[in-house]
Amino acid sequence: MSFADAVNYKAIQLCRRAVEMTAAAGSGHPSSANSLAHITAVLMYHKMRYDLMNPWNPHSDRLVLSEGHAVPIIYAAYADLGGVVGTDPANGRKLSVDDLKTLRDIESVLDGHPNPAVGFPFFDAATGSLGQGISVAAGLGLAAQMDGSDKTIYVLCGDGESREGQIWEALDFLADRGLTNVRVIFNCNKMGQSDYVSDQQSPETLAAKVKAYGLHPVVINGHDPDAVLQALSLAPPEGKPVVVIARTTKGWGVSELQQVGYHGKPLTGEGADAALEELKLPDPPPDVQLCPAMPKGEIPEADGGPIAMPDPDFTELAEGTKFADGAAKGELATRHAYGLTLLALGKASDRIVALDGDVSNSTFSQLFGQAFPERFFECRIAEQNMISTAAGLAATGKVPFANSFAKFLVRAYDQIEMAAYTCANVKIVGSHSGISLGADGPSQMGVVDTAFFGSLASVRTPKGHPGAVVLNPCDAISTYKLTCLMADYEGLAYMRTLRPTTPFLYQPDETFRLIGQKVLVEGKDLVIVSWGYMVHESLKAIETLKADGVECGLVDAYSLPLADDFLETVGGATLLVVEDNYAGGLGSAVAVAAGDRTGVRVGTMTPERMPKSGKSADDVLAYVGLDSDSICRRVRAVLGKA
Amino acid sequence: MSFADAVNYKAIQLCRRAVEMTAAAGSGHPSSANSLAHITAVLMYHKMRYDLMNPWNPHSDRLVLSEGHAVPIIYAAYADLGGVVGTDPANGRKLSVDDLKTLRDIESVLDGHPNPAVGFPFFDAATGSLGQGISVAAGLGLAAQMDGSDKTIYVLCGDGESREGQIWEALDFLADRGLTNVRVIFNCNKMGQSDYVSDQQSPETLAAKVKAYGLHPVVINGHDPDAVLQALSLAPPEGKPVVVIARTTKGWGVSELQQVGYHGKPLTGEGADAALEELKLPDPPPDVQLCPAMPKGEIPEADGGPIAMPDPDFTELAEGTKFADGAAKGELATRHAYGLTLLALGKASDRIVALDGDVSNSTFSQLFGQAFPERFFECRIAEQNMISTAAGLAATGKVPFANSFAKFLVRAYDQIEMAAYTCANVKIVGSHSGISLGADGPSQMGVVDTAFFGSLASVRTPKGHPGAVVLNPCDAISTYKLTCLMADYEGLAYMRTLRPTTPFLYQPDETFRLIGQKVLVEGKDLVIVSWGYMVHESLKAIETLKADGVECGLVDAYSLPLADDFLETVGGATLLVVEDNYAGGLGSAVAVAAGDRTGVRVGTMTPERMPKSGKSADDVLAYVGLDSDSICRRVRAVLGKA
Repeated sequence: MSFADAVNYKAIQLCRRAVEMTAAAGSGHPSSANSLAHITAVLMYHKMRYDLMNPWNPHSDRLVLSEGHAVPIIYAAYADLGGVVGTDPANGRKLSVDDLKTLRDIESVLDGHPNPAVGFPFFDAATGSLGQGISVAAGLGLAAQMDGSDKTIYVLCGDGESREGQIWEALDFLADRGLTNVRVIFNCNKMGQSDYVSDQQSPETLAAKVKAYGLHPVVINGHDPDAVLQALSLAPPEGKPVVVIARTTKGWGVSELQQVGYHGKPLTGEGADAALEELKLPDPPPDVQLCPAMPKGEIPEADGGPIAMPDPDFTELAEGTKFADGAAKGELATRHAYGLTLLALGKASDRIVALDGDVSNSTFSQLFGQAFPERFFECRIAEQNMISTAAGLAATGKVPFANSFAKFLVRAYDQIEMAAYTCANVKIVGSHSGISLGADGPSQMGVVDTAFFGSLASVRTPKGHPGAVVLNPCDAISTYKLTCLMADYEGLAYMRTLRPTTPFLYQPDETFRLIGQKVLVEGKDLVIVSWGYMVHESLKAIETLKADGVECGLVDAYSLPLADDFLETVGGATLLVVEDNYAGGLGSAVAVAAGDRTGVRVGTMTPERMPKSGKSADDVLAYVGLDSDSICRRVRAVLGKA
Repeated sequence: MSFADAVNYKAIQLCRRAVEMTAAAGSGHPSSANSLAHITAVLMYHKMRYDLMNPWNPHSDRLVLSEGHAVPIIYAAYADLGGVVGTDPANGRKLSVDDLKTLRDIESVLDGHPNPAVGFPFFDAATGSLGQGISVAAGLGLAAQMDGSDKTIYVLCGDGESREGQIWEALDFLADRGLTNVRVIFNCNKMGQSDYVSDQQSPETLAAKVKAYGLHPVVINGHDPDAVLQALSLAPPEGKPVVVIARTTKGWGVSELQQVGYHGKPLTGEGADAALEELKLPDPPPDVQLCPAMPKGEIPEADGGPIAMPDPDFTELAEGTKFADGAAKGELATRHAYGLTLLALGKASDRIVALDGDVSNSTFSQLFGQAFPERFFECRIAEQNMISTAAGLAATGKVPFANSFAKFLVRAYDQIEMAAYTCANVKIVGSHSGISLGADGPSQMGVVDTAFFGSLASVRTPKGHPGAVVLNPCDAISTYKLTCLMADYEGLAYMRTLRPTTPFLYQPDETFRLIGQKVLVEGKDLVIVSWGYMVHESLKAIETLKADGVECGLVDAYSLPLADDFLETVGGATLLVVEDNYAGGLGSAVAVAAGDRTGVRVGTMTPERMPKSGKSADDVLAYVGLDSDSICRRVRAVLGKA
């Protein structure tokens, strides 16, 4: 019996299980799953080298299922092969075919869409929001290149999915970096959810596009095992990454599932019976046994180990650089301090890598890029690809810092949310945050970032961490310390940095917690709580008010979520939270924290109206009602001294 | 003297002004601006037919500056021609060359990046966050097609910018719809911000890509006026939209600006003097006078007029549809009610148009699409393009409803934020919101949406509206009423709809305000404030608590921002806000509103941890701590009855 027969047998078996498990779940996507039956069988039973007993084995080939809804076919194969599941090696156990019936159960590791964080570590990233997989694979491929590993990263994408712009950002990136260790497979089953896919996503057009992008397209019949194997094994011609374009049948093997309107529809009752009747297994079964080969290489003890921390004082860090004068004077933009810290981290630990979206001379990730070009990835103006690539890098134990303007990162919030579900150890740094940027106007200002990341900060991940840690330091010293803590922290963290120069408010030996706050000024009448640039504007207001006999305290609440001891530390019965981002960030968190305490009043100040360009930060702050005069007015009003 | 000489003269003049105005502003992008000098001169002085005295004239050709940072060159031309600026015809005034010195001033209509909302109506959309312009142009082009207008929409994009995936989503869309009235011009000046652009964005590769996308590329010298004019005038071959790929010089005419490191850098002092020295105007000036032709066509009285409202009761609306039974029983998913309402709105007003991202059979925009195929735009799986296209449609007076899963819309938050700055009259509807979706898991759940849109809701636009209105109705009746109000409202609004069926809580004759709340249950011990699905879960809890002698009230707080009378209407000194989205939405808004009142306690409940798949909504709600049992426990704890 031939290889093809053996694959076909497995494919039918997997299709049966996909039908059965989605029937048991009462939901799911058997039609998409079954279109991948032969490709999955060739990959998981033969082509991929991977370690079924240790899915964390770093030498294994990897599979990224970009079209996450097709996951039942992967679960079916993995269960059949008895692969290990679990959130970490300590709680690993073999998946059984019986477990497939738990698909989408609240207790099950078999989530509706791929997610390693809930216990399916065969995958490196949560997928299901479409278009992100090739970028994740690019990150895995970059890491393999850096580590001298010869593993291959396979990535399965839908044809309808290939309409997502991120797919083409990712292909540009594969071409730019010559990532021949990534093998993209487009599953062209011709149907989307609501209709047939556009001709713009036909196999012919996809092949033409892929070629124009400088990659090597191969169009095959995705249900022909020999053709699939050949395409997956093809050596990259002229160093061009190979992209396999597989013509497939949605709902392969089951007539009912092949109709429009059967996206995401399980078959139940008679429908399921008829499907299983159609999906007849050949008798006798094949006499060829398929199973994947083991990857080669020793398994390292730990996953990279702790990040070494730079230990000089900040001023030492700046010595010999163009920031030395600013550091000596005690005045520097936090983005400058961040750049210096990233460079120092890069020197201390080779797990640190950085990515930027063509603004490295503004974010100051450039300092790292110039020192460590082999660990710096210029992602160009394509933020979505940058974030998902960072998630891929993080899955290998690298500690990626992804940099852009805070505003441009809004482009990648979907990708960031998915990275949060993955519990990806990604650090995201947004410069030019808030409205102190001034002249460039709102299209360049990060003002919704604290609400978005703050919302992620409000939930716990499966690992028990906040979904995101948000940092908004006000000066160079705290930026230095917090960047180090962020690197050392295992989880998703976001830091805002500022365009303008701000004076140092901390001494070099000040110590910080990742999640915490600092009392900068004690004051009996009212306590201003602020972060980032607005700490400085608040200080101005406090000086003015002091001259009038009003004594305000000031707390630098540099992080979200708030620390457990936040209210206790802040003290005071009357708080005023001042921030230059739209509502939903710090002020909301403080109001929520204080909400069910009696006797604590919390006022909040956020921009009253959308900013526009102004020649100075002061002009724009006044325009939106956040300059120090506005703060003074508000304090007086709160205290009844207006 | 030739056309080319006349254009060249204007180009030099415009470059001089771009240098001068950015020098005066102390910031800006003269190098990018000057790379567009000849293209701008050909377009604005000759090729475009437009009405300088009435930039709102609907018959005018339009220009979308996707690479918004290059805007000084456009301002220079518009000022030279004496075009009208202002936020509406009532306050229109001619822009003068003197005004150019106000670039980026807080009082100026000349913002750092294009924005019609601050008074530069020559543009239809705020740009500056890159990659969005072609999609906006596609929306303008669709509207022109619908209106039988022969106007042309020109759109200028950077080469570095063409790395953004959205650009390619937009080109797919142009090809799909055969939008030959959109003429894309790629400005290939070879330099990004931090470095040269990748070879993936070279003129040759761009041409190959454009061809593969089924469009017609024309590569020209962007500083050759005749070549520019010819390319802009080329009739679309075989009905394929023409894409002009213009080789240009960044910092044209000024040696200093042509170096790497001069992105976004104005020249001042000697640098500016040297630049003006280089940019010598030919003497004598050309004897050909260039000026744009007027567009043809009567100017209609008003901009479309008010939206006619459907007036039947909801049950009548559902009659004869597959939802009739559900409506009669008083149980229907809000997404079904939304679909029926959108259809009714479509019948009432032909200004209503709809877009979807291949999920119209889930969002139920399908009902509209089947009835009005000429007003329904299938955008496929490309949410970014969908939103910016909707913004383009809105600029022409259409009232676009853009639909997808609430989760997939996260992909387009950058585009949505830009639409908010435009004050675009766009309606966005996200289905499968919250975690009641259950089985599909977090990759399909809209849970950060209320924080994001809530943050926009916290600021006022230049028109005085909230940056966004957020609606989260709990039943079919309120969905019907609020969808109608949303259509009638002039501004950006977002509605969440639910996957599962929910019982009707309102009578057909209930009247609603767009921004408001409804007291559903009176109760003396504590008032639960909720929205969307959680209103029902809260009702369950209230029933249970009642049996124990605890009397809780319930308020359906269906909108953000909160109404001015919110706290007054809610009454009660002890509030508990319950919602199935991450923090930053309703609970935050209530806590902030109540924050500086003494005597009002506000507790909040949002998911304690990230959701995962569960077979039922109840399973997932229990998993994240939001089922009715959890609500009861919390109420008892708050009231000290635990």
